[in-house]
Amino acid sequence: MTKRIAIFGSTGSIGTQALQVIAANADKFTAEILTAHTNETLLIKQALQFNPNIVVIADDSKYAKVKEALAGTPIKVFAGEKALEEVAAMNCYDLMLAAIVGYAGLKPTLQALDNGKPVALANKETLVVAGDIVMQKALEKKVPLIPVDSEHSAIFQCLVGEGRNKIEKIILTASGGPFLGKKPNFLVNVKRDHALQHPNWSMGAKISVDSATLMNKGLEMIEAKWLFNLQPDQIQVLVHPQSIIHSLVQFEDGSMKAQMGLPDMKLPIQYALAFPHRIPNDFPRYDFKKPATLTFEDPDMKTFRNLSLAINALYKGGNMPCILNAANEIAVFAFLRNRIGFLDMTDLVERTMDKIQFIANPTLEQYYESDGEARNFAASLIQM
Amino acid sequence: MTKRIAIFGSTGSIGTQALQVIAANADKFTAEILTAHTNETLLIKQALQFNPNIVVIADDSKYAKVKEALAGTPIKVFAGEKALEEVAAMNCYDLMLAAIVGYAGLKPTLQALDNGKPVALANKETLVVAGDIVMQKALEKKVPLIPVDSEHSAIFQCLVGEGRNKIEKIILTASGGPFLGKKPNFLVNVKRDHALQHPNWSMGAKISVDSATLMNKGLEMIEAKWLFNLQPDQIQVLVHPQSIIHSLVQFEDGSMKAQMGLPDMKLPIQYALAFPHRIPNDFPRYDFKKPATLTFEDPDMKTFRNLSLAINALYKGGNMPCILNAANEIAVFAFLRNRIGFLDMTDLVERTMDKIQFIANPTLEQYYESDGEARNFAASLIQM
Repeated sequence: MTKRIAIFGSTGSIGTQALQVIAANADKFTAEILTAHTNETLLIKQALQFNPNIVVIADDSKYAKVKEALAGTPIKVFAGEKALEEVAAMNCYDLMLAAIVGYAGLKPTLQALDNGKPVALANKETLVVAGDIVMQKALEKKVPLIPVDSEHSAIFQCLVGEGRNKIEKIILTASGGPFLGKKPNFLVNVKRDHALQHPNWSMGAKISVDSATLMNKGLEMIEAKWLFNLQPDQIQVLVHPQSIIHSLVQFEDGSMKAQMGLPDMKLPIQYALAFPHRIPNDFPRYDFKKPATLTFEDPDMKTFRNLSLAINALYKGGNMPCILNAANEIAVFAFLRNRIGFLDMTDLVERTMDKIQFIANPTLEQYYESDGEARNFAASLIQM
Repeated sequence: MTKRIAIFGSTGSIGTQALQVIAANADKFTAEILTAHTNETLLIKQALQFNPNIVVIADDSKYAKVKEALAGTPIKVFAGEKALEEVAAMNCYDLMLAAIVGYAGLKPTLQALDNGKPVALANKETLVVAGDIVMQKALEKKVPLIPVDSEHSAIFQCLVGEGRNKIEKIILTASGGPFLGKKPNFLVNVKRDHALQHPNWSMGAKISVDSATLMNKGLEMIEAKWLFNLQPDQIQVLVHPQSIIHSLVQFEDGSMKAQMGLPDMKLPIQYALAFPHRIPNDFPRYDFKKPATLTFEDPDMKTFRNLSLAINALYKGGNMPCILNAANEIAVFAFLRNRIGFLDMTDLVERTMDKIQFIANPTLEQYYESDGEARNFAASLIQM
């Protein structure tokens, strides 16, 4: 029997790679639900290829076009943000791949967990914004939350079979992004296209910019705190420019386990879909000759201040990671539209973190409010 | 309740480090049985400190001295090679640490498995000589065989929780030993003391020489074949001079898992004693600054021909690994007594492998015979 996958965010980088994995393993997986934000053209193409039960186009102005293109097929078409949650609450799928970018992924993911469905989580913002509530829901419903981020997948893979053996610390490796070794006098002039050229990983625009600023690594630290139930000081970042070691766990006996390989998101995607099993594939293998040298260094947090801000939010807790994330989403999208400069992103996040009221133990509603306030404030800074 | 450990070979490098682990974890382990080959002085000292139920001195000429030293204690004293097997058949212990050096470890280990006792295996020759029979016995009695060799412990740690996920290949890392990069014109003049100076690991004399010739890595390949049920072409050797990555598994999805840390035999010893649990300790941690660069290269099998010979034996199977091992034990001990040169060891092993009759599917008795024949022939070459 095949596992029926609901891909939330099927037209993004993770979603399209997940469909490649599904296509290559048609005996194991079917695409049951596909959702897209605005890319109706690709969604239609995917639907005609994979013949899902349901598609959702979140941008409801595009409903008619999708509906018409899929007329004559049995595929059900829904539209609007609310439809994402309604579909997540359905019973027709076995696992949600949560691959919606940013804060928008939170509600459908919570709905899937509440619905008792395992979630393969490619949306780190879900845990950054409301990790306590999300993890509590997964625990309450006894459903696994399987990370898709390569770093967290690495740690997850290293933890299988370790039972109650305690983690001493985890080390999230970071490529350092396209601007490793650069200083502020260089970064001040960086433009969108340069920031999108990640040296090792092929990823979407938002995460590519976050990798260039090291915010991505900060968000990953917060994500790891929740996924693996860690204290902030158990989470370290190590720059490893070759991106071969995808992250490590150090247990309390001092033994470290690492997951390694060539940087290829298809591997953690496939692992999350197939967990606890592994599926043979022909992805290229790392052969220890190219590269034959692996290097490690500390991150330069004076230059890449986004990482410091994220660590501050990690230690502060409460709604601070939610504020950080909201401001960062506004900042990144403004940068991608050439509205603000590379270093301006950090200032914008910092000023928003200073401004929005801190709440130590927010409710889900308060997270939503903090998110909205932070977005509005950050946006107001850009318009000035 | 404490786990009662029987240390076979308590006065060697592994045995003494195991006793350090036991001393540091007196709430978890007791030393129930201690055995030594000839070092009665240390055995007596260990017995007085750890108060085991039983000690065995294999060299029975030393029985009286041990008996006298332990008079007035409740410790039972046995002597002779046969006593090792008799004690292994007793019921008073929970786990055997098989740390006897060389072929002599085979019989007590088989006895322990037959007795239904889990074995922490530090004696790779046991599997090199008669891996099929040893693994069959462990399977039949449903007892775990937990490797202590750092490489095999690494792989074992990487395999926990992987269930039926298939191994594509394993990579045994090798420091390269003290003569990495050297050529035959240098090696021809190498003496005992130089060969014993391993750059990374503190080990006994036999294994230090085997590391210098790379025979150790060849024996480990054969050991790995049996422990992890692999085909010869699934086992690779990679020179990694820093000895931080202790070995790797590559699964059939291309994902690799590695176990890492500073080179310290106490860690795999502790892991094997405590498996499946991990115990907190204060062993020094690897911090990715010292060293901050990890490098990898192929082994030089033209210079270190022992590795080629071992790979030939691995592929050939049958009694060939047993012959290789027997000849190598004779060669190493002759080298340690300055009877033959460094490169002579390889010639001696090669000539013995050519001489002794090949048996494709030997019985245990035939392994014993092949071992004896190989030793006699190898010894005869030295006396010429």
